Amino acid sequence: MYKKEISKAVINRLPRYYRYLGDLLEKDVVRISSKELSEKMKVTASQIRQDLNNFGGFGQQGYGYNVEYLHSEIGKILGLDTNYNVIIIGAGNLGQALANYVDFERRGFFVTSIFDISPKLIGTQIRGIPVLSGDELEEYIKNNKVDIAAITVPKTKAPGTAAELAKWGIRGIWNFAPTDLNLPKDVTVENVHLAESLMKLSYRLSGNEDI
Amino acid sequence: MYKKEISKAVINRLPRYYRYLGDLLEKDVVRISSKELSEKMKVTASQIRQDLNNFGGFGQQGYGYNVEYLHSEIGKILGLDTNYNVIIIGAGNLGQALANYVDFERRGFFVTSIFDISPKLIGTQIRGIPVLSGDELEEYIKNNKVDIAAITVPKTKAPGTAAELAKWGIRGIWNFAPTDLNLPKDVTVENVHLAESLMKLSYRLSGNEDI
Repeated sequence: MYKKEISKAVINRLPRYYRYLGDLLEKDVVRISSKELSEKMKVTASQIRQDLNNFGGFGQQGYGYNVEYLHSEIGKILGLDTNYNVIIIGAGNLGQALANYVDFERRGFFVTSIFDISPKLIGTQIRGIPVLSGDELEEYIKNNKVDIAAITVPKTKAPGTAAELAKWGIRGIWNFAPTDLNLPKDVTVENVHLAESLMKLSYRLSGNEDI
Repeated sequence: MYKKEISKAVINRLPRYYRYLGDLLEKDVVRISSKELSEKMKVTASQIRQDLNNFGGFGQQGYGYNVEYLHSEIGKILGLDTNYNVIIIGAGNLGQALANYVDFERRGFFVTSIFDISPKLIGTQIRGIPVLSGDELEEYIKNNKVDIAAITVPKTKAPGTAAELAKWGIRGIWNFAPTDLNLPKDVTVENVHLAESLMKLSYRLSGNEDI
């Protein structure tokens, strides 16, 4: 379909469009012009028109975009018209923070279980979500639909954990460990490298241009 | 200086180079060829040579790069040859997770205090770092060198908090709230939008190409 032709840069902007349109929906805004959207997004209006034309052009000249329709169409492109079951590997602070993000559910991402190896944590619940033993992970994956595993274990354990998850059938990995995972090609990895984000900040603070 | 000519794409790759080189240093690797580095980084060798040539070419034909020197030079470019004092606003799970990342200290980022409004948390410590009352924030910033504030408060409170931090003199904001902050131009903001990262993952899981 058309998706194959869309550039990475456009796709990278879509989650932000989606977020903005969601904010507008919450405020009961029905229509928005590319000019207004551009002021909010800090992208030129022509860039916005170009971006959205990639998906068949949701707008009408001089009339603006229907917020709800655009939000829903972009949601479909982003794969948000379905639900995802998510497990979290590691019930430390970061794992708990992720389990507590109710916003993810609004977008169709449901945390079903959290896994840890600490006897202190196993058997507890986080926002009603059970913390299970790492020993149960393989069986859990085999008996339940799990779409995404978020990895919040220490750096040294992450590659081994990810390899096991892939072997047991997980196809989506959300990796928070500051290391790269070498996984089979049919496994999709999205990295959140916090230290790298902090380094971009220090680069800019040390008197360099915006990146 | 030369920095002004360097493209955003190159700068965005530098933290990753820095991380890899740090891993090599830990393994006592002294030299690395662009070919080996390219296999690790999954970037072509010619891309690596091009990237590093931007900074005056740290390598020698047929001889490879001196890992320690390259690591240190890239560190300087990223502003890592100095220390940053960081405060965390919000001592919830995410704030605690950030306070617990010892890795940041290795790179010169020191969390000096955490601020919260919850009486349960004020007066406690996280890894020896005190949790102070939000009421003390203004005075703290005026009396201490604070380079970066990490914002982990709820979305609705983030814009107001950020505006106050900017007013009190903070020039670097690391924003984890899923909203954009409108701050004066002399304030540098680095966003970590977790929901957007998750949407990129769902886009790719729903049968689209790699982004």
